[in-house]
Amino acid sequence: MKAEIIAVGTELLLGQIVNTNAQFLSRELAAIGIDVYCQTVVGDNMSRLKNAIELATKRADVLLFTGGIGPTQDDLTKDALAEFLGRELHIDRLAMDQVEKFFVSRGIHMTENNRRQALIIEGSTPLPNETGLAVGVALTEENKFYVVLPGPPKEMMPMFNQQAKPWLLQHALTDEMPIYSKMLKFAGIGESLLEDKLLDLIHAQSDPTIAPYAKEGEVTVRISTKANSEQEALVKLNTLEAEIQKRLPEHMYANTDVPIEKMIVDIMSDRGLTLGIAESCTGGLVMESITSIPGSGDMFKGGVVCYSNAIKEKLLNVPHALLEGPDAPGAVSHEVAKVLAEQVRMIMDSDFGLSVTGVAGPAFSEHKPVGLVYVAIARREGETEVYELRFSGNRETIRIRTAKTLLHHLWKKLIL
Amino acid sequence: MKAEIIAVGTELLLGQIVNTNAQFLSRELAAIGIDVYCQTVVGDNMSRLKNAIELATKRADVLLFTGGIGPTQDDLTKDALAEFLGRELHIDRLAMDQVEKFFVSRGIHMTENNRRQALIIEGSTPLPNETGLAVGVALTEENKFYVVLPGPPKEMMPMFNQQAKPWLLQHALTDEMPIYSKMLKFAGIGESLLEDKLLDLIHAQSDPTIAPYAKEGEVTVRISTKANSEQEALVKLNTLEAEIQKRLPEHMYANTDVPIEKMIVDIMSDRGLTLGIAESCTGGLVMESITSIPGSGDMFKGGVVCYSNAIKEKLLNVPHALLEGPDAPGAVSHEVAKVLAEQVRMIMDSDFGLSVTGVAGPAFSEHKPVGLVYVAIARREGETEVYELRFSGNRETIRIRTAKTLLHHLWKKLIL
Repeated sequence: MKAEIIAVGTELLLGQIVNTNAQFLSRELAAIGIDVYCQTVVGDNMSRLKNAIELATKRADVLLFTGGIGPTQDDLTKDALAEFLGRELHIDRLAMDQVEKFFVSRGIHMTENNRRQALIIEGSTPLPNETGLAVGVALTEENKFYVVLPGPPKEMMPMFNQQAKPWLLQHALTDEMPIYSKMLKFAGIGESLLEDKLLDLIHAQSDPTIAPYAKEGEVTVRISTKANSEQEALVKLNTLEAEIQKRLPEHMYANTDVPIEKMIVDIMSDRGLTLGIAESCTGGLVMESITSIPGSGDMFKGGVVCYSNAIKEKLLNVPHALLEGPDAPGAVSHEVAKVLAEQVRMIMDSDFGLSVTGVAGPAFSEHKPVGLVYVAIARREGETEVYELRFSGNRETIRIRTAKTLLHHLWKKLIL
Repeated sequence: MKAEIIAVGTELLLGQIVNTNAQFLSRELAAIGIDVYCQTVVGDNMSRLKNAIELATKRADVLLFTGGIGPTQDDLTKDALAEFLGRELHIDRLAMDQVEKFFVSRGIHMTENNRRQALIIEGSTPLPNETGLAVGVALTEENKFYVVLPGPPKEMMPMFNQQAKPWLLQHALTDEMPIYSKMLKFAGIGESLLEDKLLDLIHAQSDPTIAPYAKEGEVTVRISTKANSEQEALVKLNTLEAEIQKRLPEHMYANTDVPIEKMIVDIMSDRGLTLGIAESCTGGLVMESITSIPGSGDMFKGGVVCYSNAIKEKLLNVPHALLEGPDAPGAVSHEVAKVLAEQVRMIMDSDFGLSVTGVAGPAFSEHKPVGLVYVAIARREGETEVYELRFSGNRETIRIRTAKTLLHHLWKKLIL
């Protein structure tokens, strides 16, 4: 089963955005046993789009489109595919209801062009858009499978996972042995060191296969196998997972694709534990990660972003002598990180208190180097622990790595 | 002058890496007046690669290849292009010297396959690789221009900038005028309403061209024109920009590609104004946006994430009677948003105080619907303004739109 991914959008051809959708879909298709033979990007142009469809129909069995299904005149993907197939477009009633409700709920006048977002192709299965307005479509013609998805990754990814993937499994993959996968998640370790620890397994791999890849501050390892049943697959996958876990017990935090903050929120909620956070150089990033998880409302009590020294003193009771003066350790120090964590824990009356203070750059401060960060974890009972971190990279990288590292340390405290 | 970018590499088709090279080259080519009509990704396979070259030669004038020029057997780009053109491959002496020196200097035995990295196509211009070993090639045949670049961005980018771009300017672009562009940025307006306001301009566009596209919570419009000089281009671009600005004065916040928080940090820093922030449902996202901007350290004094009612009372002096009781408006209310903004402004002793309180979901709270949010802006002098917002979408979407909307209101206060 061969696939081609066609991304539609002049913004891609102008280099305004990167085609991350192609990567996501390629990886997801590989995981269910569909090989991607070509990725194409075409502009918002009817004749070139139809040429691309014609070519891809000749060389692939499955065609996935991303983009070009918004409300504007240059959103042409469904129009081009309908013309190519000689089918009509019509409004999907459910999708139209959703579009109308959206404008009513916001009290905004709906312009006429928004009706285009509810169009589907005659004889297709509509793919509801749970995070946006434009409906997707899936259809079969002459043993070819066509799936049209939105361009924004936040709409495309859930639509693929929840609508298009099940549709493909049911319609296109009836004869293939399905692939089963598990995602193992790691924190506090880089991709190359992780690969080193698993090198013999990676070299010897045939079934299950092992594929590590890194994102900012975390590493994911996908283990996959083809099997006749989930039960048969799980026997193989669980054995390999146990071996990997045994080698990296302090780093493997999940066997499903979740961020480490999700594990923390779940563990703390289960045990009735609560959290308070004081952030300086990360400016709210740690709190933002925690509160992005549904259900964090009960375990996260609150926090303070104490960017200025004055606020560190006033709201978090950091002694002036620690912050300023010839012998003061300064705001970016072991001592201040410790006070911040302990004070925010007391103020929030929480079981744990986290703190961050450091130099995210681009300018250094207090004559301390960019990338020097102190994070601390205080508990209701027991010693406060302070960690000195040194990162390279730009402001964003330093902030993200700091947040992930602090969360990794907190997770270790919770599981050990 | 039309171009096609062909990326070669099975790792792209497996989704192991993202094709950032296509974005880089598309943007660079647009800047010198070459329009990219298609981006293609093919695997390391001789027949499919030759098919891709044949197709691209039919539809484009300039073909740029990235990847597939390393030492291994599956690096086939130069071989495929040479076969397609009916030309021979031979070793480039200078490139071979460089490869040999590399191995000698590191004391490593050079395996025979490394000679492949010094191969060039008969009659081509070698493009030296200053950050790697594989030599690139540029050549002309029947008014078509072929450029082969390495895959790793660290080798590809300098080779393009220092070797390929000058070659293209000299050989392919003797008659063309370069393209000049401006990015106009908008907040507080959706893509479809913005397009509606500019519809006559968009329909009438020929020169300059107008291309809108949306990201979460903001819209970008690129206006572009071909011209003989930057001065000539700016006359045309500035006239169009002024017309667009006149139609959307409350929404167009920049004529360069920056987020709205960057404008806020710059304006407030320039005027010596300071900011304090209290966030409930956004959990630190507004502060995180502001502090992601270098230089925010002086204008942002700090903030509080007040997730629980207890913390709203304790740290931000919200009266208990507003939060709880049968007649209390509750935490998600006009009244509480107002107190939060005023109190955080006083506590931080800042010129502006921002607040957010709302229901980001997935569960509703206080019997209020998911997506109902109140944001407020308090000032040292003048009335506090409170805005009621209603969003649909998931937790993440609601949080991002809330943050962008609040920042848009603050920006309007600063410029009006």
